[in-house]
Amino acid sequence: MQMKHSSNIVIVGLGLLGGSYARGLRKAGFDFVYAIDVDQDSIDYAKEQGYICDGKTCDFEEWLKQADYVVFALYPAMLQNWVKRWGYLLRDGCICTDVSGVKNGLVQSVQRLLKPGVEFIASHPMAGKEVSGVQNSHLVDFTPANFLITPTENNTERGVKFAKELAQVLGFAHVRVIDCEEHDRMIGYVSQLTHAIAVSLMCAPAAERFAEYTGDSFRDLTRIARMNETMWAELFLWNRENLICEIDDFSARMEYLKQCLIDNDRSELERLFRQSTRARKAFDQKEREG
Amino acid sequence: MQMKHSSNIVIVGLGLLGGSYARGLRKAGFDFVYAIDVDQDSIDYAKEQGYICDGKTCDFEEWLKQADYVVFALYPAMLQNWVKRWGYLLRDGCICTDVSGVKNGLVQSVQRLLKPGVEFIASHPMAGKEVSGVQNSHLVDFTPANFLITPTENNTERGVKFAKELAQVLGFAHVRVIDCEEHDRMIGYVSQLTHAIAVSLMCAPAAERFAEYTGDSFRDLTRIARMNETMWAELFLWNRENLICEIDDFSARMEYLKQCLIDNDRSELERLFRQSTRARKAFDQKEREG
Repeated sequence: MQMKHSSNIVIVGLGLLGGSYARGLRKAGFDFVYAIDVDQDSIDYAKEQGYICDGKTCDFEEWLKQADYVVFALYPAMLQNWVKRWGYLLRDGCICTDVSGVKNGLVQSVQRLLKPGVEFIASHPMAGKEVSGVQNSHLVDFTPANFLITPTENNTERGVKFAKELAQVLGFAHVRVIDCEEHDRMIGYVSQLTHAIAVSLMCAPAAERFAEYTGDSFRDLTRIARMNETMWAELFLWNRENLICEIDDFSARMEYLKQCLIDNDRSELERLFRQSTRARKAFDQKEREG
Repeated sequence: MQMKHSSNIVIVGLGLLGGSYARGLRKAGFDFVYAIDVDQDSIDYAKEQGYICDGKTCDFEEWLKQADYVVFALYPAMLQNWVKRWGYLLRDGCICTDVSGVKNGLVQSVQRLLKPGVEFIASHPMAGKEVSGVQNSHLVDFTPANFLITPTENNTERGVKFAKELAQVLGFAHVRVIDCEEHDRMIGYVSQLTHAIAVSLMCAPAAERFAEYTGDSFRDLTRIARMNETMWAELFLWNRENLICEIDDFSARMEYLKQCLIDNDRSELERLFRQSTRARKAFDQKEREG
C-alpha cells in the first residue's frame, strides 16, 4: 500500500459521495481526513459523525499544501473551476482523483490545469442514491458497485495504483480500468439512457392517472426518476453526443417493436422476446459469477 | 362469504398462475380444488405438493358439470377456444373467472359463449414472475399485488362479490373494480409499455458490450426483459392499439428530452428532472399510504 493511515487526505465537496468517501476512509483507519465545503452545516455533521477530523469553508490553503491525496467530489464544471482557482497550491507528488460521472474532455482539462508534479488520476464510483447530501452518505453502499479508473497518457503507474488502493479501501467489489472515451460511451447507455427512460416514463400524464394500478415493473423502471436535477442536467449535457446517439438507437428499437405490432407479426415479436430473455439470462449468469 | 370450503373449484390451466391459485385456495382451507391441464407432469407435481385434490388431462366432463366455481388460467386465445369447446358443460349458477392480462373484446366474447345461467366475471391478478410453470408457482406473491375486477353490463352483484372473495382468500392487498376498456388502456401503459422498454433496452448491441459496467439502474430496468414469449406476444397483439399509442407518446417524450440536449437547454432539462422527481415522490407517498 502506498496510502498510509498517516496520509493527509483532503476531500473537496462534502455531498453524498464526498461524505461516503470520508466515512469509508475513516472506517478503514485513515485518521487524517479533512474536508472542504461551502456549507458549514455539512462540515459540522461530518465532524459530529466522525467522518472527518476537521473541515473548513475557507482558509484551507495550508491543508492543500500538505495534502498527500485529494478527492474532488464536485460536479464537473465546479471541479474545473475549483482546480483553476486552488490547484496551484498542491505540492509535488500529490495525487488527486474525482468522482465524476463523465470523463472525456473533463479529465484532460483538469490535468492541464495542474502542475506537472501533481497527478490527477480520474475515477468514477458507480454508486449513488436517489437522495443527496452528506446526511445521506451512510446510505451509499460501495460493496456491490463498480469502481472505474480512467487514465490518460498523462497518468503514471503510481497514480493508477493509488486509485486501485482507494477502491479497495472503500470496499468496491469490482475495479476496472477503461479509457475516457469508452467510459462516456458506456455511461451514455448504461446510466444516462436509463435515466432518460425513467424520466420519460414518469412524466407521462398516464403516470398519475394510473398510479393506483402500477405494479413491480413500473416501480422498478421509475425508481431512478428521483434525480438531483442540477447534477444530472450537467452530466447529460457534458455527454450529450453519446446520449443523443443512445436515445436514437433505443428509439429505433422501440419503433421496430411498434412496427411488429402494426404488422401483427407474432413470430417476430416472439423472436424479440426470446432475444431479450436470452440476453437477460446471460446477464444474470455473469452477475452471479461476479 | 358465498364461497364455501366445501365448494367445488376447477382450475383450468395449471401454469404459474393456475398453480398459485390452487396453492392459495388449498392453503385457505378449500378442500375440493381440481385442475385440468394438458400436461400430466404439472398435475402430478401439483398433487404431490398438495395444491390440488385431483387433476386430469381428459375425461373431466363430470367435474365441469359439478363445478361451483371455475378459474380459467389460460392465455386469451386458448381461453376462448376452451370455452367454445367445453363451456356448455357448466351448470346453471356456476361462476367463472380468469387471470388474463387483457380484457376488452375477450371478456365480452367469453360471456357470449356461455349459457345465460353461467356467469363469467373477469379479473386480472397483477402478479407474476419472470418464470413460468406450476413448479414456480410458490414464487408468486399476491400480498402486495393488485387484483382487478372488470365487470361488464352482463355481470351481477353476485359475480362481483365472488371475485372480491376470491381476491381476499388469495390474500391480495388491493382489490379494484375497473371497466374493460380502461383496464386495457392502463395495462398498455403500466405493464406493456414497460416491458416494451425493457426489451428494447436489453436487445441493444451495447447491452452485451457494456455488461460488466452495468449498475442498479440497468438491472432494475431490464429485470422484466425475461419474458414468456408466447404469452407476451399474445397480450401485446391483443392490446396493440393501446400499446401503439403508449409507445408513440413515450417516444415523443424521449424526443423532447433529446431536443433539450440538442438545444443545450439546461433549464428545461432541470425542469423535466424536477417534474419526474416530484411525480416519483408523490407515487412513493401514495404507495406508503397504501
